[in-house]
Amino acid sequence: MTDLKIVDVVITPVALKDPPLLNSSGVHEPFALRSIVEVQTDAGIVGISEAYGDDATLALLHQAATAVVGTDVFDLNELSRRVASAVGGSAASSPTELIGTASHDKTVAQATAAFEVACYDAQGKATGRRVVDLLGGAVRERVDFSAYLFYKWAEHPGDFDVDSWGEALDPDGIVKQARRMVDRYGFGSLKLKGGVFAPEEEIEAVKALRREFPDRPVRIDPNANWSVQTSHRVAAALEGELEYLEDPTPGIPGMAEVAAKTSLPLATNMCVTSFAEIPESVRLGAVQVILSDHHFWGGFRATQNLAALCQTFGLGLSMHSNTHLGVSLAAMAHIAAATPNLTYALDTHTPWKSEEEDVVLGGGLTFTDGAVTLPSGPGLGVELDRDALAKLHEQYLTCGIRRRDDVGWMRQVHPEWTGKRPRF
Amino acid sequence: MTDLKIVDVVITPVALKDPPLLNSSGVHEPFALRSIVEVQTDAGIVGISEAYGDDATLALLHQAATAVVGTDVFDLNELSRRVASAVGGSAASSPTELIGTASHDKTVAQATAAFEVACYDAQGKATGRRVVDLLGGAVRERVDFSAYLFYKWAEHPGDFDVDSWGEALDPDGIVKQARRMVDRYGFGSLKLKGGVFAPEEEIEAVKALRREFPDRPVRIDPNANWSVQTSHRVAAALEGELEYLEDPTPGIPGMAEVAAKTSLPLATNMCVTSFAEIPESVRLGAVQVILSDHHFWGGFRATQNLAALCQTFGLGLSMHSNTHLGVSLAAMAHIAAATPNLTYALDTHTPWKSEEEDVVLGGGLTFTDGAVTLPSGPGLGVELDRDALAKLHEQYLTCGIRRRDDVGWMRQVHPEWTGKRPRF
Ligand SMILES: [Mg+2]
Ligand SMILES: [Mg+2]
Repeated sequence: MTDLKIVDVVITPVALKDPPLLNSSGVHEPFALRSIVEVQTDAGIVGISEAYGDDATLALLHQAATAVVGTDVFDLNELSRRVASAVGGSAASSPTELIGTASHDKTVAQATAAFEVACYDAQGKATGRRVVDLLGGAVRERVDFSAYLFYKWAEHPGDFDVDSWGEALDPDGIVKQARRMVDRYGFGSLKLKGGVFAPEEEIEAVKALRREFPDRPVRIDPNANWSVQTSHRVAAALEGELEYLEDPTPGIPGMAEVAAKTSLPLATNMCVTSFAEIPESVRLGAVQVILSDHHFWGGFRATQNLAALCQTFGLGLSMHSNTHLGVSLAAMAHIAAATPNLTYALDTHTPWKSEEEDVVLGGGLTFTDGAVTLPSGPGLGVELDRDALAKLHEQYLTCGIRRRDDVGWMRQVHPEWTGKRPRF
Repeated sequence: MTDLKIVDVVITPVALKDPPLLNSSGVHEPFALRSIVEVQTDAGIVGISEAYGDDATLALLHQAATAVVGTDVFDLNELSRRVASAVGGSAASSPTELIGTASHDKTVAQATAAFEVACYDAQGKATGRRVVDLLGGAVRERVDFSAYLFYKWAEHPGDFDVDSWGEALDPDGIVKQARRMVDRYGFGSLKLKGGVFAPEEEIEAVKALRREFPDRPVRIDPNANWSVQTSHRVAAALEGELEYLEDPTPGIPGMAEVAAKTSLPLATNMCVTSFAEIPESVRLGAVQVILSDHHFWGGFRATQNLAALCQTFGLGLSMHSNTHLGVSLAAMAHIAAATPNLTYALDTHTPWKSEEEDVVLGGGLTFTDGAVTLPSGPGLGVELDRDALAKLHEQYLTCGIRRRDDVGWMRQVHPEWTGKRPRF
C-alpha cells in the first residue's frame, strides 16, 4: 500500500429531533446539532466520523479541515499536529458546559477526534479491517450500554413534534420510563439524569428503580448541581444503592470532599475531562471512575491513553454520551470493544432519537439485551445514507438552532431560569 | 484482508561477542544472549522480533508460543491475554537485575513484547506499511541515539577474541573512548555507565567529558550503586553538568530523597520499570525521566501508554538499551519515531557489537550524525540474514552461557566480588 492522503474534507451539519429532556442546565431544545465529517483520500476511499454541530465546532472543523489536506490517514501524529496548529489562536470553545470546563487543549482534542476517527475508518476500509482490529482487537464483540433515564416534559413549548415517551416528573414516571426502555432495548443497567428536582425526590426515584429492577446497577448524575453538603447527604442516603455517583458537585476539590466521606465511587465527565486535570484529581483522590468520550478526549488513541492512566492509577473507566447519531454509536462501540478496562456499560442517548432519524444505512446498530454487536464490515462498519443525511441537513438549515442552549430553552417556560449551579 | 492468524512460532537463541564492559554488578561476559522470534502466519507472512536469550526467557517464550498459535496478528489484546494466561503460574524472572525488580507483571510484559513486536512486523508486511505508520506515524524520520561509554578492561580473562577498544579505567580512557565513538557514529550526546569506581573518579570523568565535548549533553548511570548520601554528594558536584542523573540509588523512596535535594533531573530504568511502580513514584516525585524499553514494558503499545503517562504527569521520556542486535535496533527506532515526547537521545549498545555480527541483512541500521534513518520497507524494515542467524545460533550452542551473570564473571578476576549494591 502506498500513501493514502487526504485530498478533501466534507463537513455536513445536521439536526435531529430531541425530546424535552431536563437536566441541571435546563432542558434540551427541540433539535440537537451534530455534524458528519467525510475525509476523502487520493485512493478514492472515504472515512467518516461524527462530531458536534454547533457553530463554534463547525468553524473549528473547517479551520482544521484545510490544514489536514495532504496528510496520510495513517499519520495520526501529523494529523493532530496540523489540527493543533490550525486551531492555534482560536478561543477555547465547548458545545455544552455539561462536559466540563472549556480549554484550549480540549478544543484541539475535539477537532482532532473528528478527523482521527474518520482516518481510522479510512484505514479500515483500505486494509479490509474493522476499526476495533486496528485499535488492538476486540476484547468483546458485544458492547453493553446503559439505559439513560431523564426527567422530561410531555412536550416542548411551541409547535413541535411530540415524542411518544410522555412526561416523567416523579419516581413513578421514571420507573415507567425505565420499564419501557428496558423492555425495548434490554439494558442491564440504569442511569438517571438528576440535578433537576430536590435531591430527596431524586433519592426516591433511585430507590424506586432499585425496588423495580433489583438486579440492575443504578447510577445518578446530577451534573454538579449539588453543593458538597448536599452531596454528602445524598451519598449517605444512597450508600450501597449505586454503581457510581456521577458528578454530584462541581470541581475537583469539591468532588474530593465528597469522596472522602462516602464509600460510593464518584464518577465524572465534568471535573476530569482532559489529561491536564488528571494529576490533581489523582493527588486528591477526587474521582474513582472517569467517563471517557472520544469526541472531547481527542479520539481513539487519546481514549486508549486515558484507559492506560485509569488502569495504572486504579481508576474505573466508563463512557459518556451526548445526543448522537449512528456514526458516533459505531465509533463508541469500536473503541469500547478494544479497551479491556472499559468494564462499565456505556451511556447512550440512542433511545431518545427518533427511530426514523439517522444518517447511517439501516438506521444504525441495534440493541439486543442492552448491547450492540460490533458490525463486521471494514472500518467503522456503518455507511452513510445519502438521502437521510440530506434530510437531516435540511432540518439543520431550517431549525434555526446554531448552538445548544438548554438554559435559554428553559426560559421559554421559566423566564427567571439561570441554570446556575449548584442549585441544591 | 481476511484474518492473518499465527500458525507457528520459531524461537532461535543466539550469542554475540561482548566486550568486558564494567558496571555495578560486575562485568559483561564474553558473549551476550538474545533470541530471534519468528511468527509465521497462515498467509505466509512472517513477522520477526528480538528478545532476551537467557534460559528463563526462552522457557517463557516457548510456553507463550504454544498459546498464541491461532491468534490474529491484529488482535493484540487476545495476544496479551493468551500470553498472560500461558505465563500464569511461572515465577517472576528477569534476564538481569539491571532492569529493576522482577515481578509477575514484568515477566508477562516481557513475553508479550516479544510476540507483539513480531505481530506488528507482520501487520506491516501485510498492509505494505511501516511499523511506525501503524503506531501513529513518524514524528521524526531520524532517531537520535546517545554514545554509551563504559569503563572496560582491555580483554576478557581467558582465551577470547580481543575487541579493538582497549582499556578504559580512568577519565582519560573514557574521553578517548568517547572521541572514537563520536568520530565513528556522530553521537550528539554521551552517557557514561558509572557505579564502577569511587564516585570522585566518575565525577572527574564526567567533567573531563564536559570539557572535551562542551556542546554534548552528558548523563551518568551508576545503576543504583550509590547510597542516598553519596548521591547527594555527587549530585551537588555535578549540578548543571548533567542532562540527567540515572538511577543513582536503589528504590523509589531513596530516589525521592535524592530528587528532593538536587535540581538535576533523575532518570530511571531500575526503580520504575512497570506500570505498578508509577503511582508511588509520582506521589513521591522520585524521578523526572523514565527510560522506556519495549522489551520489558510490554511492547510498543505499552510504550505508548507509558509515554502518555509521562506526558500527563510532566515526566521526561528516554529509552534504555541492553546489549542487542539489529532487529531490536529497528524496533527501538520505530517506536521512538512514533512517540512525540520521546525527546531524549536513546541508549544503544550497538557500538559494542562486533561489526561482523548481526542477524539482519546488511548488518543493521547505520548511524550518521548519531542517528539512524527509519528504514523505508514495510514492517520493521529489516530482514533476517539466515546464514548470520545460523552462525550466531551455533555460537550460542557452543558458548556455554545460558544466563547473564556479570557477578560471576567478575569473580573470575576478583573472587571476593559480590556485586552487592550500593557499594559507594
Ligand atoms: Mg455525566
Ligand atoms: Mg540505566
